[in-house]
Amino acid sequence: MGVPKVSFNSWSEAFRRPFGAVKTGSSIYFSIKVANIDVIEVDLMIQRDGEQAQVRQMAPSSEKEDMYYVKLTTESPTRLYFYHFRIIYQEDLHERIIYYGKSEDNYGGEGRLVSDLSQIEQYQITCFNKLDPAPDWYVNGVIYHIFIDRFSNGERNHRVLNPKKNTFIYATEEDLPYYIRDKNGDIVRWDFYGGNLSGIINKLHDLKLLGVTILYLSPIFEASSNHKYDTANYRRIDPMFGDRKTFDKLINKARRYGIHIILDGVFNHVGADSIYFNRFGTYGNTGAYKDQSSPYRDWFTFHGDQDHYDCWWNISDLPTVNKEKESYRKFIYDAEDSVVDTWSASGIGGWRLDVADELSDDFIAGIRKSINRHEEKDDHKVLIGEVWEDASNKIAYGKRRHYLEGGMLHGVMNYPFRTLIIELINGKINARQAVRAGLTLKSNYPSDTLFANMNNIGTHDTERILTVLDNDEKKLQLAIWLLMVLPGVPCVYYGDEAGLTGGKDPDNRRFYPWGRENRKIVTIFHEAIQARRTDENLQTGDFYPFSIGALFGCLRLRSTENYTVFLMNPTMDSVDLDINQFIDETCGNLIRGCLQSVLPATKQLNAQAFQILKSNE
Amino acid sequence: MGVPKVSFNSWSEAFRRPFGAVKTGSSIYFSIKVANIDVIEVDLMIQRDGEQAQVRQMAPSSEKEDMYYVKLTTESPTRLYFYHFRIIYQEDLHERIIYYGKSEDNYGGEGRLVSDLSQIEQYQITCFNKLDPAPDWYVNGVIYHIFIDRFSNGERNHRVLNPKKNTFIYATEEDLPYYIRDKNGDIVRWDFYGGNLSGIINKLHDLKLLGVTILYLSPIFEASSNHKYDTANYRRIDPMFGDRKTFDKLINKARRYGIHIILDGVFNHVGADSIYFNRFGTYGNTGAYKDQSSPYRDWFTFHGDQDHYDCWWNISDLPTVNKEKESYRKFIYDAEDSVVDTWSASGIGGWRLDVADELSDDFIAGIRKSINRHEEKDDHKVLIGEVWEDASNKIAYGKRRHYLEGGMLHGVMNYPFRTLIIELINGKINARQAVRAGLTLKSNYPSDTLFANMNNIGTHDTERILTVLDNDEKKLQLAIWLLMVLPGVPCVYYGDEAGLTGGKDPDNRRFYPWGRENRKIVTIFHEAIQARRTDENLQTGDFYPFSIGALFGCLRLRSTENYTVFLMNPTMDSVDLDINQFIDETCGNLIRGCLQSVLPATKQLNAQAFQILKSNE
Repeated sequence: MGVPKVSFNSWSEAFRRPFGAVKTGSSIYFSIKVANIDVIEVDLMIQRDGEQAQVRQMAPSSEKEDMYYVKLTTESPTRLYFYHFRIIYQEDLHERIIYYGKSEDNYGGEGRLVSDLSQIEQYQITCFNKLDPAPDWYVNGVIYHIFIDRFSNGERNHRVLNPKKNTFIYATEEDLPYYIRDKNGDIVRWDFYGGNLSGIINKLHDLKLLGVTILYLSPIFEASSNHKYDTANYRRIDPMFGDRKTFDKLINKARRYGIHIILDGVFNHVGADSIYFNRFGTYGNTGAYKDQSSPYRDWFTFHGDQDHYDCWWNISDLPTVNKEKESYRKFIYDAEDSVVDTWSASGIGGWRLDVADELSDDFIAGIRKSINRHEEKDDHKVLIGEVWEDASNKIAYGKRRHYLEGGMLHGVMNYPFRTLIIELINGKINARQAVRAGLTLKSNYPSDTLFANMNNIGTHDTERILTVLDNDEKKLQLAIWLLMVLPGVPCVYYGDEAGLTGGKDPDNRRFYPWGRENRKIVTIFHEAIQARRTDENLQTGDFYPFSIGALFGCLRLRSTENYTVFLMNPTMDSVDLDINQFIDETCGNLIRGCLQSVLPATKQLNAQAFQILKSNE
Repeated sequence: MGVPKVSFNSWSEAFRRPFGAVKTGSSIYFSIKVANIDVIEVDLMIQRDGEQAQVRQMAPSSEKEDMYYVKLTTESPTRLYFYHFRIIYQEDLHERIIYYGKSEDNYGGEGRLVSDLSQIEQYQITCFNKLDPAPDWYVNGVIYHIFIDRFSNGERNHRVLNPKKNTFIYATEEDLPYYIRDKNGDIVRWDFYGGNLSGIINKLHDLKLLGVTILYLSPIFEASSNHKYDTANYRRIDPMFGDRKTFDKLINKARRYGIHIILDGVFNHVGADSIYFNRFGTYGNTGAYKDQSSPYRDWFTFHGDQDHYDCWWNISDLPTVNKEKESYRKFIYDAEDSVVDTWSASGIGGWRLDVADELSDDFIAGIRKSINRHEEKDDHKVLIGEVWEDASNKIAYGKRRHYLEGGMLHGVMNYPFRTLIIELINGKINARQAVRAGLTLKSNYPSDTLFANMNNIGTHDTERILTVLDNDEKKLQLAIWLLMVLPGVPCVYYGDEAGLTGGKDPDNRRFYPWGRENRKIVTIFHEAIQARRTDENLQTGDFYPFSIGALFGCLRLRSTENYTVFLMNPTMDSVDLDINQFIDETCGNLIRGCLQSVLPATKQLNAQAFQILKSNE
């Protein structure tokens, strides 16, 4: 007897079976090995989300020494579960208690023993209601994210279409973006380059050649700003972007190119300058701000007078809508002529929901139903949410969110993978940490979600990837390839492929540098996208990240005959590939087996180099 | 014996002969009436500018009781003289001294007695070297002042010609002007509407119809800003405005319409972003800022390091040039290929010198000589200076300025008349005060100057006249007519005739409202300009302002057979014309005589009404 030796790994089927998220009602088998001490009792401390923890005593195994096990059957309605282990043992005639939970770095997998319960970090079990896979065209696709004002102007001589009064137009498309603010820092005039829908139509062929199959467009509805997250009229295409005719042409021409279009649905707030709120009197004496008896009045929450109302992040330009209001729900999704119904019927591929955290679960479920109404055979639509964190356990406004349990979102914008990619390549985390981060997400997300997330290495809300990576094109190459080999749908932010740089908003929203593209970077993107598009393993193969010393690897496997291994050296030095340094976080035998049959003869990876190895090559 | 009774009027030939400014070397006869006291001595206390005052004892008249006189002969070199009177008399066996000088309101004319010398205000005598009349085409003309970016865009579809990188273009020509500033209040991006030279060419016909004969253009040379007072290259037309070819076309087409063009000469400072200074490296490693051995280096005054240099009004964007530097003088005017020579040879009518106060007298004289070199028969050129005050006695940078003594400026921008017009119409001064203000300027300026001043009721540096006059179109009508009947060349600020409003810069620089003109105001301008253009009295007739009670009048007389009387009621009430209320400030008999033969039968003027009465009608 002596120091307790406890073994558990939430990612290993030897300890927790099955892996990852489970359908509610199914059972999970837990095993834990407790050795070297005089065990009195081993307990699974299991807590259903929002409820008291319960003690589930584990039984010693009759077959394996020092092993204890218990079976947990998950219950309806669907909730997360959290767990850790309690071990009671005897030492020097005293009864002692120790606990086993998640490791200090908060990743899953192997954990740690603590003697102080307050230090315990619980493992998570995600449950879901039903399988809810995203449509194939989406899962197998490559997305291109266009910030419309900044992408392409299809007008003759790049004339700006229907410029708005008292706004500014950039003198040239090479100008650097700039917000025009007053002394208080408020935007007083909006700035436009003049990108529009016909400009996108003109570039569909180029996008097709790049390998793009899906466009995710920034909001297209009429709004004062250049970004249009301040909707003025959900029923009208912004006249600077075009009209319904142009939009239909875009949808149709894109379809001919095999390209689906995802719209940005901004339903949490509207613009202060909108037909609904009308703060500035643009729409006469109508609207909630001007007219107490406006049909929109009860959408908004006023405090005392007109000028005090709920708004998003205290931005007075973005009054928040009370999404519990029946009339708003009818307007947005719960009627045949609702906003979501109308546009969903137009031939789009689906929606990305802006600030999904701010929408209640049933609001999102309502939108999903509305979308489903317009699905036809072979035309399934996708619904993605803007969530910045691990969406499996997100708490927003004090409420646990259930986006991913089926019937709501297919996936979310995968910023955690962006963080993983950047930190790995910038040396902020090592290969093993990256593996653990990857497995944590894999185990928390329903597998359908993992394949349906909109992965990115940059969006209109982040710094440009090339800037984040210190303008290092070799780093950029690694990031691009990682984006293509990780599970989830890669989403390329317009201009990243042309070598655009830029810090935070607005610098990340420069106009696409037509004719001034960095051809080398274009080529890297093109090759990586083609690799993704032509390799089903990368699209839908199971995801097994691994590390071999400093090397990061990722096995994407559809079967033991059909798999692809991506191997990269994120460091600035060349690294010997020493298989002895392989760390078994999960499925070690499987990964090792695959590796051994594809690993190249030359056992070294140059600094910032990568290899793609295929089972059938 | 009792209270001293002293009579003097600097505007009356009974007391000071001749009237007004005199040629150096000529004599002035002073008379003063001192009655009711026991006079011991009456002295003219005369002070040549910059010298000690001298006592000139006045002799009692042998003809007129109580009159004392003295003759003063003005001496070379030309200087202003200042004077007042000292009267020594005996009272109760004591010797007492009193002084007579300008009235408290600082106008000339009748003055006042003071016993304390420190309270004395001296009268002024302006001397000049030679008659220096401005060319006839100028004196007889009507100027239209165009701020080029804001007037007219001659490009097809109003495309902006050669927009500058990292600047903003107004979305529509109806937008309100706005300076784009950073947190420190510095302008970070220039804002443009896109007015250009071809736009002016397109409007020459309209301007001709309005009655315009002269265009005064804001600076045309290449510069970063929209106003172009920050010259980047004196040898190049700003590409947003056009090129040399467009400029020549403008000159030639304008000439065919009988329209002369006056350029804005900005020679005190250049732009920091210029080939001369090149602070931002726009021109490589050349220029005074970048290159210590730049040929332009010694034009500028650096203090310690590059970033500390003399600049105009501490605006770092406008480094001041040291105008004493020989190389700068050669560059600007003192060589055959100098800037002034080159452009003067292009067919322009002359120049308006920006911030003339900042240019030394000999620098201005040098420019004038350069201009003269390019005069041909019937093609005399004009040189006007930007001076905001009474230019006859301006002290700038501790030095008395000599602009108007002949061989330098023909005239200046007449802001004092603008003040007179506005204050009279807005009721800040009454008719008599306006008369006294007018006569003060008349007596201080050489008569050639009075006819050559560029009169205005608003420029790119002031609020719009309609705004200053509380949007009262009746007030505006009075102001327009006053502008046309006062001596000096009327200068209409573009858009004033269309009813543009606006506060201070940049609001006074809105784009011309093509198609949205206030037709009523256009008509008023048109009629007043036609009146001016068809009446030689208004162009070159002697100027006799007068008041009759609340009424302000102005006699413009070429001979006792040929004159025009303007009479107006600046008040908000109708006013009876009672000739007994006429106040004789100067030439009372002459004015009264003229008035009596033209005054209408109806002896009443409605509120804000005016009349034009002609000797030959």
